[in-house]
Amino acid sequence: MRRSTYLSVCLSAVLALSGLAAVSAQESTPLPDPEVRGGKPLMEALSERMTRREFAPDRLSAQVLSNLLWAAFGINRPDGRRTAPSASNMQEIGLYAVMADGAFIYDAKEHALRLAVKEDLRAATGSQEWIGTAPLELVFVADYAKMGERPEEDKRFYSGVDTGFISQNVYLFCASEGLATVVRGGLDRAAVGKALKLRPDQRIVLVQTVGWPAKK
Amino acid sequence: MRRSTYLSVCLSAVLALSGLAAVSAQESTPLPDPEVRGGKPLMEALSERMTRREFAPDRLSAQVLSNLLWAAFGINRPDGRRTAPSASNMQEIGLYAVMADGAFIYDAKEHALRLAVKEDLRAATGSQEWIGTAPLELVFVADYAKMGERPEEDKRFYSGVDTGFISQNVYLFCASEGLATVVRGGLDRAAVGKALKLRPDQRIVLVQTVGWPAKK
Repeated sequence: MRRSTYLSVCLSAVLALSGLAAVSAQESTPLPDPEVRGGKPLMEALSERMTRREFAPDRLSAQVLSNLLWAAFGINRPDGRRTAPSASNMQEIGLYAVMADGAFIYDAKEHALRLAVKEDLRAATGSQEWIGTAPLELVFVADYAKMGERPEEDKRFYSGVDTGFISQNVYLFCASEGLATVVRGGLDRAAVGKALKLRPDQRIVLVQTVGWPAKK
Repeated sequence: MRRSTYLSVCLSAVLALSGLAAVSAQESTPLPDPEVRGGKPLMEALSERMTRREFAPDRLSAQVLSNLLWAAFGINRPDGRRTAPSASNMQEIGLYAVMADGAFIYDAKEHALRLAVKEDLRAATGSQEWIGTAPLELVFVADYAKMGERPEEDKRFYSGVDTGFISQNVYLFCASEGLATVVRGGLDRAAVGKALKLRPDQRIVLVQTVGWPAKK
């Protein structure tokens, strides 16, 4: 599981040394191993589950980001199955972590981040004034190419359901860790998709903002 | 919060004594108070989150049912907000608990079950052979009348997302309690809707089967 991450890091280093694409689309940064045993008791996390829209600018540590992405849609079994279900096990939802230093694709298999765009795109993920102030915008992207021959409206429906499962994991992780979060559907999907360099059959479903709550 | 439950129970008793509609559509059974503090640590529940389709026939106790429904979409704040979010806080998803002794609507405000149909409809909620063997089929019903003037396709999408949030709560509750569960989209929605006496603008989104795992 770690070998290809290692190879990819080596490859990036070689490319950097040779003066070629130091930031390649394949550049991969391993995340710390997720802490898969702690957290608040489930019913307490559910008691504290809520939406909050006021964020402090503080970054998330690498460990918190690792835990959050694993909780959201990490692999929890040897056969590659995940912390959230998906219709017919299509696993069509990809997570893009949009942060100050770039937009990254969560690679669940390697538990790593692959650079997609080396640019701060946070403020572009919505129109409300506060958007861009939190350290993380998690963009849920459905890969329609993984969804078979269904009618387009069914793909939209099931990618919505499958995003709901994952987003609720993020809500509960945030409740457990004292993080603030809000899931949002109002955004210019075409513009954000273009900024993230998505293919036409990759569709943005929702965005979820995550950060530490604003100090009162 | 408890007063109207009490009144409704009294009313049912009076109706029963007077020989009138002992089983009225308004008949309400309070659930035990939910245990909102226990459960496995969140990350453990996520580690154990999985789909299981083999069930023992054993019933769920009233306490387990109470905890499950509260975890799914109970009220966790004084302002009536819930354990799962919903688009624009529409709270349009209703939970129908389809069990051996009837189909019941979960009344989150009263934390009670209101009888909808006094008939065992479990086997009607799908076509796979094992359906009807588990003690609970949880039917997620979207009330389109609560969703404003959106186009129908947007209502379908958002009711899918909002069901995903709730269903994931059920998955994690089951992981925490050692229950088996599977969420399902393949069912004859029109037939089940008719059996549950839904209005035309109430739409079945998904069904989730819950029970104790089959003994090996």
